[in-house]
Amino acid sequence: MVPLASRQAALRIHDLDQQAMSRRVKNILFIMCDQLRWDYLSCAGHPRLHTPNIDALAARGVRFTAARVQSPICGASRMSFYTGRYVQSHGASWNGFPLKVGEMTMGDYLRPLGVETVLVGKTHMEPDTEGMARLGIDPQSIIGVRVSECGFDPYERDDGLHAFGPDGRYDPRVPRYNSYLNEKGYGGDNPWHDWANAAEGEGNKLASGWAMRNARRPARVAEEDSETPYMTRRAMDYIAQAGDRPWCLHLSFIKPHWPYIAPAPYNDMYGPDDVIPAVRSEEERRDPHPVFREFMHHRVSESFAREEVRREVIPVYMGLIKQIDDQMGVLFAFLRERGLFDNTLIVFTSDHGDYLGDHWLGEKDLFHEPSVKIPLIIYDPSPAADATRGTANDALVEAIDLAPTFIAAVGGDAEAQAHRLEGRSLMPLLHGATPARWREFTISEYDYSLSPTAVKLNIAPRDARLFMIADRRWKYIHAPGFRPMLFDLERDPDELHDLGADPAYAAERARLDAALARWGLRMSQRTTLSEDQILARRGKVQRRGILIGVWQEKDIPDELWQGYLGDRP
Amino acid sequence: MVPLASRQAALRIHDLDQQAMSRRVKNILFIMCDQLRWDYLSCAGHPRLHTPNIDALAARGVRFTAARVQSPICGASRMSFYTGRYVQSHGASWNGFPLKVGEMTMGDYLRPLGVETVLVGKTHMEPDTEGMARLGIDPQSIIGVRVSECGFDPYERDDGLHAFGPDGRYDPRVPRYNSYLNEKGYGGDNPWHDWANAAEGEGNKLASGWAMRNARRPARVAEEDSETPYMTRRAMDYIAQAGDRPWCLHLSFIKPHWPYIAPAPYNDMYGPDDVIPAVRSEEERRDPHPVFREFMHHRVSESFAREEVRREVIPVYMGLIKQIDDQMGVLFAFLRERGLFDNTLIVFTSDHGDYLGDHWLGEKDLFHEPSVKIPLIIYDPSPAADATRGTANDALVEAIDLAPTFIAAVGGDAEAQAHRLEGRSLMPLLHGATPARWREFTISEYDYSLSPTAVKLNIAPRDARLFMIADRRWKYIHAPGFRPMLFDLERDPDELHDLGADPAYAAERARLDAALARWGLRMSQRTTLSEDQILARRGKVQRRGILIGVWQEKDIPDELWQGYLGDRP
Repeated sequence: MVPLASRQAALRIHDLDQQAMSRRVKNILFIMCDQLRWDYLSCAGHPRLHTPNIDALAARGVRFTAARVQSPICGASRMSFYTGRYVQSHGASWNGFPLKVGEMTMGDYLRPLGVETVLVGKTHMEPDTEGMARLGIDPQSIIGVRVSECGFDPYERDDGLHAFGPDGRYDPRVPRYNSYLNEKGYGGDNPWHDWANAAEGEGNKLASGWAMRNARRPARVAEEDSETPYMTRRAMDYIAQAGDRPWCLHLSFIKPHWPYIAPAPYNDMYGPDDVIPAVRSEEERRDPHPVFREFMHHRVSESFAREEVRREVIPVYMGLIKQIDDQMGVLFAFLRERGLFDNTLIVFTSDHGDYLGDHWLGEKDLFHEPSVKIPLIIYDPSPAADATRGTANDALVEAIDLAPTFIAAVGGDAEAQAHRLEGRSLMPLLHGATPARWREFTISEYDYSLSPTAVKLNIAPRDARLFMIADRRWKYIHAPGFRPMLFDLERDPDELHDLGADPAYAAERARLDAALARWGLRMSQRTTLSEDQILARRGKVQRRGILIGVWQEKDIPDELWQGYLGDRP
Repeated sequence: MVPLASRQAALRIHDLDQQAMSRRVKNILFIMCDQLRWDYLSCAGHPRLHTPNIDALAARGVRFTAARVQSPICGASRMSFYTGRYVQSHGASWNGFPLKVGEMTMGDYLRPLGVETVLVGKTHMEPDTEGMARLGIDPQSIIGVRVSECGFDPYERDDGLHAFGPDGRYDPRVPRYNSYLNEKGYGGDNPWHDWANAAEGEGNKLASGWAMRNARRPARVAEEDSETPYMTRRAMDYIAQAGDRPWCLHLSFIKPHWPYIAPAPYNDMYGPDDVIPAVRSEEERRDPHPVFREFMHHRVSESFAREEVRREVIPVYMGLIKQIDDQMGVLFAFLRERGLFDNTLIVFTSDHGDYLGDHWLGEKDLFHEPSVKIPLIIYDPSPAADATRGTANDALVEAIDLAPTFIAAVGGDAEAQAHRLEGRSLMPLLHGATPARWREFTISEYDYSLSPTAVKLNIAPRDARLFMIADRRWKYIHAPGFRPMLFDLERDPDELHDLGADPAYAAERARLDAALARWGLRMSQRTTLSEDQILARRGKVQRRGILIGVWQEKDIPDELWQGYLGDRP
């Protein structure tokens, strides 16, 4: 039971004072990669991939080693980052599922604190056009644009997937990047594909990056015109013109997400010998959990189950990360030249991982660590953060913690917004404090209603859901309609032995199931009143004349009867 | 596991055809009383109170004998009626807690079906002014007014509590009813109190209805000018001017809610001898559940624990119901004269009950049947409903079922809105069908964050919550931070023996707790896409060029490569 909030409020004011004294954060640079595994950085221990610029950021900041996303899929994960809320709370549970109008996002919290909240790159946001129409919000108005862009002012929105097929374009918005390429002399209707995501094929033909056997061929685009450097320059364009205005810039790369193809020299910077072995075992394929089994049958999983595929694709995946690291070098030098390293909080993270054949899977979607765990490095320029520079922190951290962290970093009171924000500010951890009561579980969710697995298992959209709850040792997956899964991360860090049906672990499963049930009953939609507002209302109604249960006049003070017991009108 | 929705959709179309053939419903008259116990009607078995007009409606319709509200408190209960969603889903969990902008209400569903959705009387809606400001919605615009009035066009909004005290007015809106009374010659600033809710006191003084010892004195207002007849006339005014336009009129009375005071002759139509005994036992006061114990200490509970109070108040509570019944006679005659009984679905219900001293409690708030169970009578004029006229139906029905019922009644497809509406249409039950899978549990919730109990038990607002889950036999109450409560409604229909701590019932508690946990994990916020829309999207992304996990070109059909494998641009 939580102590009364009045006491908390007093502590909070003290914390805010302390923070203000040592605060240096004026801007926030929120860098997100797409599908970057937590362990594909040299600072996280990758034996062959060297990422000195990202490592340097980690050396000046804190690297969180137990950070997980709220859903291992782009759209749902990002909506949790941007709203600071669990997927079950915001409801945008898969790619292209609109975030309902009314959900508050980072921009709604940061703008009132004087911080321009701006996007360069990907969000995977799908606007709730029906909801906007119902509420009379013009999608072209400033408010309408922000509702459509999950709260960001789009300096440049580019979701980075400009696919097209017999039924038309995947993303109806033609990106500025295509015009840029055309202007630079790269011809065609869709230079995103034909130059940045295709190599030279046989004869006069293209070798599309969509066919993974082409992965190690060089993309046709010049390196400087490929997506990662382009988007980095766009971020620097924004920063250069922002002048003295405080900003929160979300620089959001599509890479190292598929199509797996890179421009020279990144296409062959790594080779098959640099590929680390897949984490998988034959035991996993013997009588697996039905949902796991079906995911292993997805085309991408069957491809990555083949060593041939891993040996072609993973070197390029590494090259794309190396390119990001080099661009981080460019960007950080730019910041340093402008003195922005002294007043900018810098976050480097990803929206989820990539199985790359581990556990016989490709893509993400399920909850093994290669999928659900993310790299998360936060650099705080404040002197208060000096004590933690270069450290790793193994607290259970969630993607929803970033929104409150940003609010706190620029001097806002994230705790006062806890009726909306389900995450917690990481600022105390960045400043070396150990909060008395940190969370004991990480939650992640997955909506597989659109997947081949749902079709195969004949599951209605409403029921096609998975919930992960993990503490420091155990990871439990609740799959409605099926038995659960369970992994012991201490004795089986590679998550090769599913204990979900083992009678010996019934008590462990019951404990985690009960914790998940408590989470399910949490207060997540009472978003229009804060804890403090509720406390301030306690006992007030009587002084506005509501006198419930009074037998006779003398039972309560005379002043409450003022006006009720006067002379008859 | 639910079968695939395509099959459901086929069944649904069939149902709709059937319905359309026999449908006669053009209008909906949705009558709600406030704080009317389910058992204070003669058709429900009250031995002394005769309600022939309401009984006549029951004789032509269906009386639901196991209907419960989603929260035994005005505001939260009503928001569930109006949204068709559980309290945990809409978040407006107590009186005056704003319903967040974006939540859809009856009006949003019915207006597109051509039905004017109008309010006369009380809703207890508190607008989300902060949310409206954030989204640029002008509270004075049509959309703004509807968002502020939980979806109704307010023909007359009057929450019926025009109290005032040292800190000002309880409800800042001065009601039209006050002007009406002034115009009729009832003087003073607040004739609502001074005439309709006060009697003559000693000398020249008022005897306020807020002091319950005054309950049986006649209110100073003439009966025809008291609240219930006034509001009934307002409903008839609306209906008279509506002409041929289809409408859904929410006629929402404040009575028999406190202040317990009635105009003559209703003030002394019943006397102490008509008061039925309180349902309570000494066992309940020995070592009760901590939350129950504290509620027993609320002032209103201590008052109603005294027989003297019950004997003064309950006769007037009965008189106020009798007055409603008489007004139902007036209203139904008016409808009959205009032929509206042939094309109007009529609902008679309440937002919750009133303990009246049962279980040593006053008011509502907790989950004993006198509080959580409601009267619910539905009259459907369609021939399809002939088979059920005059019957009682004991299906587990919830307040959230009315919104889908109304949609279905006027020919809409409520099932297609199941991603938003958590209730189910009662039309099949009204037409004598037995749906294959009806719900097995009723859920009700209570937020006691503002109550003296929360202060006494030192509970933070976030934790001050109760959940009831009840099936046909058992009622289980989950109280976070405390042991649960449990009642066996079969062996103990009066709910006098709390089995919440009895080791003999551990299995029953575990079963109900698990069912509540499943409910907590339900999909309630994926409101921007329907089940059918999700089914329609399955497998579509590949035909828009997203080719995940393809190794080589010949692995997938040529048509998917169109545009990707052409000549180089």
